[in-house]
Amino acid sequence: MADLKSTFLKVYSVLKSELLEDPAFEWTDDSRQWVERMLDYNVPGGKLNRGLSVIDSYKLLKEGKELTEEEIFLASSLGWCIEWLQAYFLVLDDIMDNSHTRRGQPCWFRLPKVGLIAANDGIILRNHIPRILRKHFRNKPYYVDLLDLFNEVEFQTASGQMIDLITTIEGEKDLSKYTLSLHRRIVQYKTAYYSFYLSVACALLMSGEQLDNHIDVKNILVDMGIYFQVQDDYLDCFGAPETIGKIGTDIEDFKCSWLVVKALELCNEEQKKALHENYGKPDPANVAKVKALYKELDLQGVFAEYESKSYEKLVTSIEAHPSKAVQAVLKSFLGKIYKRQK
Amino acid sequence: MADLKSTFLKVYSVLKSELLEDPAFEWTDDSRQWVERMLDYNVPGGKLNRGLSVIDSYKLLKEGKELTEEEIFLASSLGWCIEWLQAYFLVLDDIMDNSHTRRGQPCWFRLPKVGLIAANDGIILRNHIPRILRKHFRNKPYYVDLLDLFNEVEFQTASGQMIDLITTIEGEKDLSKYTLSLHRRIVQYKTAYYSFYLSVACALLMSGEQLDNHIDVKNILVDMGIYFQVQDDYLDCFGAPETIGKIGTDIEDFKCSWLVVKALELCNEEQKKALHENYGKPDPANVAKVKALYKELDLQGVFAEYESKSYEKLVTSIEAHPSKAVQAVLKSFLGKIYKRQK
Repeated sequence: MADLKSTFLKVYSVLKSELLEDPAFEWTDDSRQWVERMLDYNVPGGKLNRGLSVIDSYKLLKEGKELTEEEIFLASSLGWCIEWLQAYFLVLDDIMDNSHTRRGQPCWFRLPKVGLIAANDGIILRNHIPRILRKHFRNKPYYVDLLDLFNEVEFQTASGQMIDLITTIEGEKDLSKYTLSLHRRIVQYKTAYYSFYLSVACALLMSGEQLDNHIDVKNILVDMGIYFQVQDDYLDCFGAPETIGKIGTDIEDFKCSWLVVKALELCNEEQKKALHENYGKPDPANVAKVKALYKELDLQGVFAEYESKSYEKLVTSIEAHPSKAVQAVLKSFLGKIYKRQK
Repeated sequence: MADLKSTFLKVYSVLKSELLEDPAFEWTDDSRQWVERMLDYNVPGGKLNRGLSVIDSYKLLKEGKELTEEEIFLASSLGWCIEWLQAYFLVLDDIMDNSHTRRGQPCWFRLPKVGLIAANDGIILRNHIPRILRKHFRNKPYYVDLLDLFNEVEFQTASGQMIDLITTIEGEKDLSKYTLSLHRRIVQYKTAYYSFYLSVACALLMSGEQLDNHIDVKNILVDMGIYFQVQDDYLDCFGAPETIGKIGTDIEDFKCSWLVVKALELCNEEQKKALHENYGKPDPANVAKVKALYKELDLQGVFAEYESKSYEKLVTSIEAHPSKAVQAVLKSFLGKIYKRQK
């Protein structure tokens, strides 16, 4: 596993060098340095789960057959395309959310001399994806499917981000809009497609599969992505800060979290009033009241119930799949997230 | 011509309706309304020259043969893809430049309730391009070439924007960086590819041509784009505000304009000192000194000379092209911009 990660990181260096010599642009020393620094700052510093999943999944689809050097390189490159996509979203999200830190360092746009140039850097990150795909996949029969896939998933992610942004417009804070259906929609589009479906879809294309024949795989992965985000929402409030690596602020930030949606569903009139009065305010006293209410409603128990039900449903769907190799891919994903504490 | 424009605008309505029903996303009423308003505000309000050029060019390439309804619709759709691309760049540029107005109205991000959501709207605009291409061109033999073309041109534009941004970083204002070669590079990448080459390239692809066989056409259009931007720089200072529709601020904004580059090339030590002291300052007295210096150096005469030399060179290159139809396309472009006053 440490080995896989170091191979993966080597591919990053190769892709970066190629991008810095891209013949479609006439580089200056300044611009080459800028892009290199920007890439190193924003692309490889995450957990790399999405990227590594492409290689994992592709291996499982090959059912134990040893991968060639070229296959490892290609699967890694697709993995890096997902990491580039993620970096692009994060750089722009941090600007829109006016965030301060990301992955334990200041957000890119916070750096002196960067500022709003970060918006264009986000665009550059996004543009690197088709550059990588063109350089390494132009002659593959699935090249056009890869372009379509990345385009569709990016569109879905931006659309999910849009509903998230427009439901939390400043001055229009309105808890009554927060329903399970809205929550599911935001999470499905903003997170699930690019975080869960995309890596498996890349591996399927590399294996010569047509994505139209794998709608069931997509649906299972989207459901897994939703389950993952519900865990995230839960951990934001109930996780141990030292384990999850941050102090959650969903309550202060008026987020459409699974917890508030469930609370709204379960509360009586009096509790609803308390929720409306205290949700989305920065004062710790308000936050404490919301947390007390969550405990009153036993959201920890409700979550445990949701978690085991979701797990069972996912296992049933996975086991209904005709291909053992695909089952292995999906079970590997599920294994990584079930009952996670961080 | 008025007819062409009204046909073109009808295609906008069709594309918009299709995008608002895109099955890749699960729309809410709010999100559909948001996108519709955002599109109407940002996409169709410009001069539409880039978009209309696709239809013009395609007609000329067909050498007078009447276009079918389908051909008109497809050429218009590609034209709109370019207008969508332009809208995407403008929405994000306005955020980065902290601009106030655009096309005679407040910049999109300046509207109450919009703010930095505009960054995601820019992304949505960008994502509409592959949605349009996929819906209408998926089965064309040149579909993958269209995707590659739009990807490459977007990458070049973002890269040109990057060198423009990093050479004007606040606190590092340094006139000595401004050379003709830097100016050419910024203009070529930031403007010429998407404003001049892209529409002809779209028309060529629709006509069944391979773009690799038309590098000469690309080079001529890039040169034309550079000439166009030099005119723009000239008019910013010497054009009549009532004709160009704005009051130029390139001097105040420390822009890497063709004028300042030429001035630096032609000035003596004393004049250079004056330029360094007065360029890039908001005070009208400083601006007036720069303008006086431009007159001292006879930049109006230098520009007139540049303009006629560029024109001659472009005509010679165009007439060397083996295809009369391609010549007609290029001459039509040149005719629209030669000695323009706005």
